[in-house]
Amino acid sequence: MAHDHEGPLARLRRGHEELVLRQLRTHGPLSRGELGRLTGLSRTTLYDIVAALVDGGAVVATVPAAAERRRGRPVEALTLHRDAGQAIGIDFARRAVHVAAVNVAHEVIGSTSAAHGAGLTWEERVDLAARLVGSLAGGTLRLGSLSGIGVGVVGPVRGPAATPRTDSPSGAPRLHEDLPVLLGKRFGVPVLLDNNTRLAALAEATWGAAAGVQDVLYLRLSHGVGGGLVVGGALHRGAHGLSGEFGHITAEPGGRRCSCGKDGCLETVASIGAVLDAQPTAGDLDAFLATLPTDPAARRLLDDVGTRVGTVLASVCNALGPAVTVLGGELAEAGPALFDPVERALSAHLMPVSRPGIDLRRATLGEVGGALGAIALVLHDSPLLTRYHTPKSVE
Amino acid sequence: MAHDHEGPLARLRRGHEELVLRQLRTHGPLSRGELGRLTGLSRTTLYDIVAALVDGGAVVATVPAAAERRRGRPVEALTLHRDAGQAIGIDFARRAVHVAAVNVAHEVIGSTSAAHGAGLTWEERVDLAARLVGSLAGGTLRLGSLSGIGVGVVGPVRGPAATPRTDSPSGAPRLHEDLPVLLGKRFGVPVLLDNNTRLAALAEATWGAAAGVQDVLYLRLSHGVGGGLVVGGALHRGAHGLSGEFGHITAEPGGRRCSCGKDGCLETVASIGAVLDAQPTAGDLDAFLATLPTDPAARRLLDDVGTRVGTVLASVCNALGPAVTVLGGELAEAGPALFDPVERALSAHLMPVSRPGIDLRRATLGEVGGALGAIALVLHDSPLLTRYHTPKSVE
Repeated sequence: MAHDHEGPLARLRRGHEELVLRQLRTHGPLSRGELGRLTGLSRTTLYDIVAALVDGGAVVATVPAAAERRRGRPVEALTLHRDAGQAIGIDFARRAVHVAAVNVAHEVIGSTSAAHGAGLTWEERVDLAARLVGSLAGGTLRLGSLSGIGVGVVGPVRGPAATPRTDSPSGAPRLHEDLPVLLGKRFGVPVLLDNNTRLAALAEATWGAAAGVQDVLYLRLSHGVGGGLVVGGALHRGAHGLSGEFGHITAEPGGRRCSCGKDGCLETVASIGAVLDAQPTAGDLDAFLATLPTDPAARRLLDDVGTRVGTVLASVCNALGPAVTVLGGELAEAGPALFDPVERALSAHLMPVSRPGIDLRRATLGEVGGALGAIALVLHDSPLLTRYHTPKSVE
Repeated sequence: MAHDHEGPLARLRRGHEELVLRQLRTHGPLSRGELGRLTGLSRTTLYDIVAALVDGGAVVATVPAAAERRRGRPVEALTLHRDAGQAIGIDFARRAVHVAAVNVAHEVIGSTSAAHGAGLTWEERVDLAARLVGSLAGGTLRLGSLSGIGVGVVGPVRGPAATPRTDSPSGAPRLHEDLPVLLGKRFGVPVLLDNNTRLAALAEATWGAAAGVQDVLYLRLSHGVGGGLVVGGALHRGAHGLSGEFGHITAEPGGRRCSCGKDGCLETVASIGAVLDAQPTAGDLDAFLATLPTDPAARRLLDDVGTRVGTVLASVCNALGPAVTVLGGELAEAGPALFDPVERALSAHLMPVSRPGIDLRRATLGEVGGALGAIALVLHDSPLLTRYHTPKSVE
């Protein structure tokens, strides 16, 4: 779908490039002759494609050492550039910036975070992100080999390269419309952008609690309540970039006014703020969670919260039938006091034939999930080729 | 997604075939030389691919009439076979069989239906389907050119080629486990199978109210209440074949026991039976619908039904953000008496930022939707058939 607006020739060329790169990923070093046999491409087409990939830095052509040469003209071996897949993720959360980096082998090189005040401009947040990126892996990250940056932001986003919507709900800070431009200038690579909670869903389905699972529902109970859907292994965005808004499903008809403007949203009963409002003596979430073993009122409150969460999840599960449901955010640290009532409500409101398929898991990636998901977005939407496939990364 | 389990070589070959067929569809008749330039395939690969397509009947090679020949050896022109894409859909509904046929141009050649009693065996239902197929297009349908049959059945189905589940909810007749075998024997072509309500969703997104729309939510209010999701142009099945069970989302907590085994499902308030139970003097649905202009109680009842339908739809829309929501089934014939309260409730329970995106439409394909969706499934999922069909036009 990302290539709907590519012309047929550009699509054809991209297809050929992917063919060549896939063979190099699968087989390792290959000669042009071997590539020709494996891809079925004509000599002219193949030489043209390979030349462009070498020019772009994605593929490296090396001549074997003299001892390994056969007679005649030495045969060049083509390989993927070892740094070709390095990618960085930045999550611009409401009051913090999280960054993470992953290498070509999809291993997390490092991650780090910094909290900040509410008044920071986008320029200042980008500066902060750049400093954090610079500190990753003890400063050993080669920015020159970066192939793409994935970025998570608060609020609805239509697609990975679309200008973020500025009619953000929930009183979130208005997005700097030029954020991708600002980041592109700073890092000199293509920038892909999505909602950070949706990206956390993709991260859980890539490296976290549901690693490798194709159909995942992720719900985060934090200062806000939101989530994301992974469908067939890919992030689901919805027609208007508004997929995964579980926090604004009505959980209590006629209930409290939500920051989104309507009443009784799940967020009005299952956010950190809602819990602390209902138990004001606790002070903060850590203190509240600490009272759970000894305070029956706190447990009853979480029981009610969990019941509403499970009821909403059951509606979505009846509609979608995910393989795994992941519950994250700070409130998930309550453990069984929250998960038990969620499971009970899920079971009560799922159609009986679906109940054996319930697989509720606790998120494992924590606050760095958004940044890791941003990397997954880069790897997913521009696998390895990233900087070499401008059509994909600018769409 | 449909080809996840193909080996890399089969995938490569399929890619080449699609390349060749796409050029023939786009440009009309072409010589092998022209095809080589347009596809970038090597001479050897191209001749091999073309030979297989001609053998399979998808492509026809013709020599131009003498007058049109230039000097030297005549150049063969390659074209798509005009009958190559004929496909049939059969919907085995609870008490009826619906069939439809579509030609290579994606035009519906014909459709027909027959009602039957509850006691029919699967053998008898297949016989009935075969007679209906034989009667299509005045008996002119060339079964020899059939490239596949899509089949809709009641109850959950995991995937297009999976054995249907027999733990069907809603007291539906247990599926004959050998149905695909039975049909394959009768028609001698590959059979793809899915839930018929989900297929109706795919049909509305292919030929109906949401033709060409990539993200569609379809809800059918009939004797049962169910639906389907089209995500990114493809049918969404869910991890366990249980996607689209909107009829079993709790609409009335603590409400009536549903045939699925749990309480207060949307089906217990918004099925034809539920409406007639609430207004028993009407007798049947047509009589009930006829009373709407004059009977305020009937309108109030539909207002309540519509409100519950809209509330459930809003939950799913907040989760998924579809581009278009289609409402079908016999109850949709009530028109504004149903659609107005649905729209009001949708608007009340959608997060405000999503409300401008509401696009609620009435289904247009009626009872033949399941059979047409079965054809869309064949055009979409069958590797055999995608050989003869542009993926673009069905995706």
